Amino acid sequence: MVGVIMLKGVKIMQRSEKISHAVIRRLPRYYRYLGELLDSGITKISSKELSRRMNVTASQIRQDFNHFGCFGQQGYGYNVENLYEEVKKILGLAKNYNIIIIGAGNIGQALVNYGNFKKRGFNITAMFDINPEIIGQKIEGVKVYDANKLVGFLAENEVDIGVIAIDGGKALETADILVAGGVSGIWNFSPTEVPSTDKVAVENVHLTDSIMVLSYKINGL
Amino acid sequence: MVGVIMLKGVKIMQRSEKISHAVIRRLPRYYRYLGELLDSGITKISSKELSRRMNVTASQIRQDFNHFGCFGQQGYGYNVENLYEEVKKILGLAKNYNIIIIGAGNIGQALVNYGNFKKRGFNITAMFDINPEIIGQKIEGVKVYDANKLVGFLAENEVDIGVIAIDGGKALETADILVAGGVSGIWNFSPTEVPSTDKVAVENVHLTDSIMVLSYKINGL
Repeated sequence: MVGVIMLKGVKIMQRSEKISHAVIRRLPRYYRYLGELLDSGITKISSKELSRRMNVTASQIRQDFNHFGCFGQQGYGYNVENLYEEVKKILGLAKNYNIIIIGAGNIGQALVNYGNFKKRGFNITAMFDINPEIIGQKIEGVKVYDANKLVGFLAENEVDIGVIAIDGGKALETADILVAGGVSGIWNFSPTEVPSTDKVAVENVHLTDSIMVLSYKINGL
Repeated sequence: MVGVIMLKGVKIMQRSEKISHAVIRRLPRYYRYLGELLDSGITKISSKELSRRMNVTASQIRQDFNHFGCFGQQGYGYNVENLYEEVKKILGLAKNYNIIIIGAGNIGQALVNYGNFKKRGFNITAMFDINPEIIGQKIEGVKVYDANKLVGFLAENEVDIGVIAIDGGKALETADILVAGGVSGIWNFSPTEVPSTDKVAVENVHLTDSIMVLSYKINGL
């Protein structure tokens, strides 16, 4: 929930700690859709129309946006650009992030080759691997360093997010090195779950979870 | 919700259409954790203990399992194996799925190299690409076919799930070919959203969504 304080007639939003996980998960989707609307020159939209496009109920959309203090205007709907900028701020996308990737295998390379990250303000500055055949190479302009240079790199460079794109075996050890090196976020693609702490935020990506949801849906057809 | 019908004293669960998306999203995580418990020889567990391990409230866990007609016993908790088998069935994992991957680039190769899919009953039987340098090769034992052989392959082989691991440009066209070829599920990694229909279930994986949730969490530290 967001507390709205009126101060000299100006609304001030306060982000509280209690926004549900489900709402947070929907925000990037809203952000993507609103970006597409902007790109196609649409400046206002009703929750009903947004609902049709996104396959979320209109009342859900209104509720979600109310959480963040974004209210549509009766008979007008939402101002797309304002809403886009608000969701952008809430998602922490109004600034840039320096990212390094541990593991220059398939997943690591797929991420480096994925153009959309840079567009969103995520700059991949280095990769690390143990394979001598790729150490020293550049992939999409990003240099691959020897994994034993990781601690030194973290000491000398500002890194916000470390991506763990190696097999599970060394995931926790790698996470410890990243946290000691001062990263504030870990994006973990290894099968080993890395826990969040009060020092570091973690997103664990389990690709198998997604295909299990798919098999669930297939059986409901 | 699950309707429980008593028929000659035997409980029969009926899956209704109204299990929330959020509950479904949690099921694979329960399934993974329960599998780990089984692997380490743990045969029963309380919702409280499961709650501690999974960082979900105990009441949420009880609610989720009640949805599916799984009730813990007072003073005993849940039988891990029963619960595991039940979640497995609900997720549609009691049978195997034949999978083909369109696009043998980084994402496609990462999926083929990921051992856990086979363990869960997802068998990758073929890959398709347009790059003459990799057509005809085998990756982890899976043959890469020329993309123009896709229609013929679908006509001659039983395929349950098609993975779209190509750039956005041809995603919808590829989805149409897969649906016409009889697949019941599409796992889409392209940036273009592929809509579900009553004929095909779709899981759209947007990697950028996950890193946006991470940046949200970083700003809440």
